[in-house]
Amino acid sequence: MAKENRISMEHGAGGQQMQSLIGEIILKNLTNTKAGTVGLESLDDGATIFLDREFLSKNPEAELVMTTDSHVVKPIFFPGGDIGKVAVCGAINDLAVMGARPLAVSSGMIIPEGFSITDLEKVVRSMNAALNEIGVPLITGDTKTVEGTALDSIIINIAAIGICDSPVRDCGLRPGDKMIISGYIADHGMALLTKRKGFEFNSDLESDTAPLWKMIEPILSVKTAGGERAVTGMKDPTRGGVADALNEMAQKSHVGIRIYEEHLPIRETVHVSCEMLGLDPLEIANEGKAIIAVRPECAEYVLELLKQHPYGKYAAVIGDVSDEKPGKVVLVSVLGSTRYVDVPTGDPIPRVC
Amino acid sequence: MAKENRISMEHGAGGQQMQSLIGEIILKNLTNTKAGTVGLESLDDGATIFLDREFLSKNPEAELVMTTDSHVVKPIFFPGGDIGKVAVCGAINDLAVMGARPLAVSSGMIIPEGFSITDLEKVVRSMNAALNEIGVPLITGDTKTVEGTALDSIIINIAAIGICDSPVRDCGLRPGDKMIISGYIADHGMALLTKRKGFEFNSDLESDTAPLWKMIEPILSVKTAGGERAVTGMKDPTRGGVADALNEMAQKSHVGIRIYEEHLPIRETVHVSCEMLGLDPLEIANEGKAIIAVRPECAEYVLELLKQHPYGKYAAVIGDVSDEKPGKVVLVSVLGSTRYVDVPTGDPIPRVC
Repeated sequence: MAKENRISMEHGAGGQQMQSLIGEIILKNLTNTKAGTVGLESLDDGATIFLDREFLSKNPEAELVMTTDSHVVKPIFFPGGDIGKVAVCGAINDLAVMGARPLAVSSGMIIPEGFSITDLEKVVRSMNAALNEIGVPLITGDTKTVEGTALDSIIINIAAIGICDSPVRDCGLRPGDKMIISGYIADHGMALLTKRKGFEFNSDLESDTAPLWKMIEPILSVKTAGGERAVTGMKDPTRGGVADALNEMAQKSHVGIRIYEEHLPIRETVHVSCEMLGLDPLEIANEGKAIIAVRPECAEYVLELLKQHPYGKYAAVIGDVSDEKPGKVVLVSVLGSTRYVDVPTGDPIPRVC
Repeated sequence: MAKENRISMEHGAGGQQMQSLIGEIILKNLTNTKAGTVGLESLDDGATIFLDREFLSKNPEAELVMTTDSHVVKPIFFPGGDIGKVAVCGAINDLAVMGARPLAVSSGMIIPEGFSITDLEKVVRSMNAALNEIGVPLITGDTKTVEGTALDSIIINIAAIGICDSPVRDCGLRPGDKMIISGYIADHGMALLTKRKGFEFNSDLESDTAPLWKMIEPILSVKTAGGERAVTGMKDPTRGGVADALNEMAQKSHVGIRIYEEHLPIRETVHVSCEMLGLDPLEIANEGKAIIAVRPECAEYVLELLKQHPYGKYAAVIGDVSDEKPGKVVLVSVLGSTRYVDVPTGDPIPRVC
């Protein structure tokens, strides 16, 4: 391929080549770049974000929420997404499970010399599509290039800023709560594994990578008869899968969580291939799922709201919360036997998100 | 070195090893981790930031400012700093030159397998020291590990969020303005080059890496007799050096900038080694300097304020702004001859910030 179609070291230096890389490849492919008086196209040292004064006056306890997520996914293109989509969704979903409306994101890219500019454009377009789906602008960025000997593929960091009336925590679960998962588990990790290893099975399997804010927003305003928020805790089960997320919720909330194998939404193909490969789908990464703890009397209504959104179509109540075995997660098998779901001790599929 | 003193792939997976890495190495070495109800120690999906309601009610045009900066400096430890310090200062200074008080930062680290845990601790302590100097918390983070074959050294992204009454722009320069630089130029790039190449000369030279907020804060409130902000534009001359920053300011502001060689603060040792190596100090990176455009009648007072801060001790008026040759930067030599200062076409010292 011609030299001009590959990233060179000069692209990452301050100066002309850098400006043209940013202008022609990155800015051209982003359609929503402004959240205040200074946006990305200004290429200033940062960008600004307006504050919603009306929201603030109505919500005296409102806070900003900040999160950051770096991605080194391999391969960078996979069924159902790519590193750009997963980077954006990873950050947005972290805000969403804290109950925060995303206001803006930043992008920090490290690109190795020799990286295809066509691939870079595809990745940026994919970031743009995910952001546009939820109407969030990418307002500021930083792009560095490094020698091809120092790094073997692109790395993307997305930091995101949002606002919430009060944060949803992963430590807020209460005995009696119902546990909901917003859809099929383990799709992301298994789609990447399939692509990476070239397996014949699972050929239709796609990553679940998706920005969840629009699915989550409606459930945040559901209240119990007593006027409390129905959602008591949320988490997105990415690295470490559902097993890791549930254990963290149980430990931090000092409650026990019991989940039922028969209620876990798992695609047949994922189930079969996990069995074949000796993997536990509970430990496999997801990039478009939320685990939601909700007061029992509101569980059915929250489930109904989730199902109204395409990303929540296969949402299910998978278990409940009690004060028994605090800090532990128990799986009840289809046949009624129980086992502890442990914190994974290593990632069964390295670098999937 | 024993295995337990090196980063392994398991450190980056979701799960137990990850939690111990974050808990024992990162959290333990950070002393300011909270800006709202949810801080870093919660290890939730993100963290929260209180909004200063009084500031907002007094400043109806106030906006948030967001910036992001990824760092791949080599070597990671150098005279006057390390990758942790430069990452924090890079982001904080981007906020500062936009006139924004930093509220919080996030950290995104990518660490190659085999990286020394002792070095990681040193880097985190250094980030902590730079943040504490200006009282800014690190509230949320993300840590990934990758195979040693995929990446050769640590990468740190810092995103930062701040608030300003109204942003200072790099496009706000007006004819008549005086141009100020806050101290000696080219120290950072030359210190790294010296360390990297093992040169004998410059052995005392240190990087200027520093968080500039406290130096910049006082000058933001200086007003002209007409009640305007005296500072019309600011930029930190990092990659591409002073040459790149001045050109950007001239182009974006549609003004001409003239600077005088005799007023440029350059250390003798930097001057001599640049001559020897055929490098232009105007193109060498700085990590603790600001270029400030200021209304002429306020220039002396702003200079005086800068000099009261240790980081501004050697601040100097280096030139002025006119409507001649808009978009161009002219250097007047000691002997009175003039030349254009061009936008650098490549980084003379790759990956210094």
